[in-house]
Amino acid sequence: MRVQGIPYRTVWAEGDSVKMINQTLLPHRFEIVELSNHRQTAEAIRTMIVRGAGAIGAAAGYAMAQVANEAPETSFREYIEAGARTIQETRPTAQNLFYAVNSVVEAIFGAATTADARKAAKEMAGIIADADAAECQAIGEQGAALIKDGARILTHCNAGWLAFVDWGSALAPIYAAVRGGKSVFVYADETRPRCQGAMLTAWELQGEGIPHAIIADNAAGFYLRRKEIDLVIVGSDRIAANGDVANKIGTYEKAVVAKENGIPFYVAAPATTIDTACPDGDSIPIEERDENEVLTITGLNSSGVVERVRISHPAARAYNPAFDVTPARYVTGIITGSGTYAPGRLADAISSPFFAGTLQRS
Amino acid sequence: MRVQGIPYRTVWAEGDSVKMINQTLLPHRFEIVELSNHRQTAEAIRTMIVRGAGAIGAAAGYAMAQVANEAPETSFREYIEAGARTIQETRPTAQNLFYAVNSVVEAIFGAATTADARKAAKEMAGIIADADAAECQAIGEQGAALIKDGARILTHCNAGWLAFVDWGSALAPIYAAVRGGKSVFVYADETRPRCQGAMLTAWELQGEGIPHAIIADNAAGFYLRRKEIDLVIVGSDRIAANGDVANKIGTYEKAVVAKENGIPFYVAAPATTIDTACPDGDSIPIEERDENEVLTITGLNSSGVVERVRISHPAARAYNPAFDVTPARYVTGIITGSGTYAPGRLADAISSPFFAGTLQRS
Repeated sequence: MRVQGIPYRTVWAEGDSVKMINQTLLPHRFEIVELSNHRQTAEAIRTMIVRGAGAIGAAAGYAMAQVANEAPETSFREYIEAGARTIQETRPTAQNLFYAVNSVVEAIFGAATTADARKAAKEMAGIIADADAAECQAIGEQGAALIKDGARILTHCNAGWLAFVDWGSALAPIYAAVRGGKSVFVYADETRPRCQGAMLTAWELQGEGIPHAIIADNAAGFYLRRKEIDLVIVGSDRIAANGDVANKIGTYEKAVVAKENGIPFYVAAPATTIDTACPDGDSIPIEERDENEVLTITGLNSSGVVERVRISHPAARAYNPAFDVTPARYVTGIITGSGTYAPGRLADAISSPFFAGTLQRS
Repeated sequence: MRVQGIPYRTVWAEGDSVKMINQTLLPHRFEIVELSNHRQTAEAIRTMIVRGAGAIGAAAGYAMAQVANEAPETSFREYIEAGARTIQETRPTAQNLFYAVNSVVEAIFGAATTADARKAAKEMAGIIADADAAECQAIGEQGAALIKDGARILTHCNAGWLAFVDWGSALAPIYAAVRGGKSVFVYADETRPRCQGAMLTAWELQGEGIPHAIIADNAAGFYLRRKEIDLVIVGSDRIAANGDVANKIGTYEKAVVAKENGIPFYVAAPATTIDTACPDGDSIPIEERDENEVLTITGLNSSGVVERVRISHPAARAYNPAFDVTPARYVTGIITGSGTYAPGRLADAISSPFFAGTLQRS
């Protein structure tokens, strides 16, 4: 997608380097980081310079290709295995990371010569990144069919292209609709505590020139009740087999209030988000994160310095569940690259080419 | 209520001075401001050193008593009238302010001598403040009956004693329950954009030693769905004749999600909040406030300086409705000083002694 008029991916290979947008600086500064070896790329994954399942997977694939490139002839196998471990230890809960590393390792060990292995690693890393971008683009095309010209759309958190290689999940249908000539208006929930809506979604929409306004999370209900929102599209961290959806904290409230007002509520996600081993939402463990995410906030001060400020009194305590579960009955449809499915019809999504594709959940 | 173990009101008279808690510094600093003449007190009202309907009314009454005290014999009437105008111009939309000023002016002009007038002004200002505190205490006693020992209570924004002279509205039942020996736990919604929950409600609860946690507004639904909240109590800016409730933005979402989960949702308010001239919530105009309340946030930086930081990219725009309307069907009961009424039975509340009392809507 575009930044200041120029198309970008979140992460890509250039010669022997990996390049990525430094997401820790957004929205205050736009900088590309160049990582000239796999250790630097692994460190960038660990420090969340790149974030989001799809983008992390692609970065891990590229890092693994760097490992192959760097590996000396004399200890090729040992270097590959050590490099794979280094990358896998950066974000131990990221499924896509493991799948990407393993895919590139398999390609490496499947090759006859070192030179072939290096070539195969580079190709596989590219395939992984392209597959992520292609699936997100397909989500966009499927979802765009649900967006009428003039539609006013609410989204929560950031399920945009910054979380993937390109296009995104929840924002992909919006990008596709706009590129297809429709005009839309997006309400971007701020998404406390980490403010991904205010920081990332608004920045993405700005780059694509899409009219939008940030609203306090509290204001979504106000616009839903007034019918000034025509549909809601959010992403998902995990979708259970019964169609229950785990996503950023606050998603559940929006879904309940949307349903109460007869407004369609869609979840857009790659097919790998569907976890067939998870029977329902209540089986999904909910991470409780650092209370300082709630008690403080980060922004740019009047001197142009990014600073963390404390909102509450020094003794204040906070609870900070990172995700919530939206039961399937509030979900109008799940938008995937192969189509939009009722949450009770996930079996159809699972049998789609994308679910059988590259980035299957391990 | 208590601050660091010592009981305070938000505003009081001491000799010829008016003293008040400087609410612009909370929760980072606790300071009492001494205002030695009516111009200083009026300026304190204008600059929101004191805020909240009840507290503003009391401050205005005390300021008017200062006017009487300062007025020279030779131009007594002119000084009184000019002083009244000075105070009334500070917050032109505050109903309680006008009522308080007019009550004290009437007391002044009803007296036979200048000395009597000064005495009558001082007495009337005291009556206004005491009536506010007494009504809030009565709200507390009525509401405490709804709180079981061990109850977990969600509140939104700050409808605590800082908005009144003492006790508050939504928090009064909690204070009364705790003083009556019940143990409770309070979830305080942060309440973006102005964060009155994180800044003021948490500070108040801390002073009274009541266990609580701040949560992102997005997290309320998470706890409601898990039935980890037993009841919700919020305040109100205006209650329409049909029981629809205008309150801080986000109240509507909490009410919908509470109802969806079978959790009682109460509104606590002085009887003057009921606007019999307003037929329903959709007749209540909703103020759109400065977008910078959403785009920025104020807190204490690591150097101990209160600073405003910007969350979003420089070109970002925000919408910022200050209030929303919760239809009466989501409201379990309205807690007033004379009892708790179903929203459809507001006529009973209106016929109560508090509604006929001192601070009737003009």
